[in-house]
Amino acid sequence: MLSKNQIKFVNSLKQKKYREEHQLFIAEGAKIVPELLNSRIVVKQVFATSEFLRAHQIGKDTERFEIKEAELERISTLMTANEALALCEIPVYTLDPEAMKNELTLVLDDIKDPGNLGTIIRIADWFGISNVICSNDSVDVFNPKVVQATMGSIARINVHYTDLVEFFKTNAPVHVMGALLEGENIYTKQLPDSGFIVIGNESKGISEAVQQSITDKISIPSFSHEQAVGGEAESLNAAIATAIICSEFRRR
Amino acid sequence: MLSKNQIKFVNSLKQKKYREEHQLFIAEGAKIVPELLNSRIVVKQVFATSEFLRAHQIGKDTERFEIKEAELERISTLMTANEALALCEIPVYTLDPEAMKNELTLVLDDIKDPGNLGTIIRIADWFGISNVICSNDSVDVFNPKVVQATMGSIARINVHYTDLVEFFKTNAPVHVMGALLEGENIYTKQLPDSGFIVIGNESKGISEAVQQSITDKISIPSFSHEQAVGGEAESLNAAIATAIICSEFRRR
Repeated sequence: MLSKNQIKFVNSLKQKKYREEHQLFIAEGAKIVPELLNSRIVVKQVFATSEFLRAHQIGKDTERFEIKEAELERISTLMTANEALALCEIPVYTLDPEAMKNELTLVLDDIKDPGNLGTIIRIADWFGISNVICSNDSVDVFNPKVVQATMGSIARINVHYTDLVEFFKTNAPVHVMGALLEGENIYTKQLPDSGFIVIGNESKGISEAVQQSITDKISIPSFSHEQAVGGEAESLNAAIATAIICSEFRRR
Repeated sequence: MLSKNQIKFVNSLKQKKYREEHQLFIAEGAKIVPELLNSRIVVKQVFATSEFLRAHQIGKDTERFEIKEAELERISTLMTANEALALCEIPVYTLDPEAMKNELTLVLDDIKDPGNLGTIIRIADWFGISNVICSNDSVDVFNPKVVQATMGSIARINVHYTDLVEFFKTNAPVHVMGALLEGENIYTKQLPDSGFIVIGNESKGISEAVQQSITDKISIPSFSHEQAVGGEAESLNAAIATAIICSEFRRR
């Protein structure tokens, strides 16, 4: 049975200011909660059905609350509550450019859509990219919609927030690659093994200030041949472009 | 000024049964409506602000209604109404396998998420794929959420609905490629210039019945190296997988 205060507390974490105050975030569902329980993320509390609690090993440092689906609805962020909701500690990662020197790292300049950020983190996970650096004005990675869209990958990727312009001033690696419409064809360009890949905002692209630090402009050529029926595809979604670029870097 | 009947009629088109009855669909916004006006899609009516109507050429076969943003809110499907809403004729495309013989065609087996279908149509447009064949149980392409997610590409791609199992029985080309976890590495496999690329449902993948028709199993290898921090990425989102596969076919 949930108390009024518990319901109020969990619901408060849907807002960024309370997540920051309590350093906690919400993760939900029969797929993501078990993944987090088995990850480096510290799960402080689990609210779940008796079936879920019986089926999963839960460490002794995690408080568990057996509740009914109907009660889960009262704290859920989903359209349909799903077996379990976890409150997790917001992890602290050190942004260490030195450690990224021989790796590929994704840099996101003002990504606003929660679904895009979650999907990009899932892509990073798939392609073995350990670090994602977001501009301070990007959407919060601990927003419940982002957490859900990562499908558990949030447990494995170090996501950092920083002032990108300041960061690049002192920490730019040899290659800072930016996805820009006027960039070189990514399919034929020689690509380095390591460096930063910068992805811009969904409608405005990479900001002027961040563009100053780009050393290699890359683009995904369009094969659209539909001028006959009016116009042609103007752009790819930010997460789609990220996926194609990561795929190109990794396949070689 | 909108009449009560107009408001009721436009809102009824948010449901598939009324779209089918009237053979009309809704498209919205300052970006998509002008694209549709300049495309092969027949726009029957435009409800828009005076600024929009002044700024865009609208053919004489399109009825125009000048309304205020506040009125637009009453018929909009968006969180925030945006300058213009169009009622368009549902186009009729002929599903002609003969015409697809030398092309790449996307086949979607039970794609359920409107955002995924819209994004996949945008990807098809970018990569010069003219036809997308959906199983009958896939989400309706004229669902307003799908229309919005295509960002105008809906005007350029022929989207068909059919019983895939029946269709493959008589119309399978030489290559029916299916995205399956146990498939061959797409980065190293020889890929044909034409054929069908089958993408499965978001959680269940390609159905058993459709798998019978697959001649070439392909997969995108994971580069995930995060076992150390618990688990690894299990799958890519359906639209992301589609993008990477189309990119691989086209770059060669």
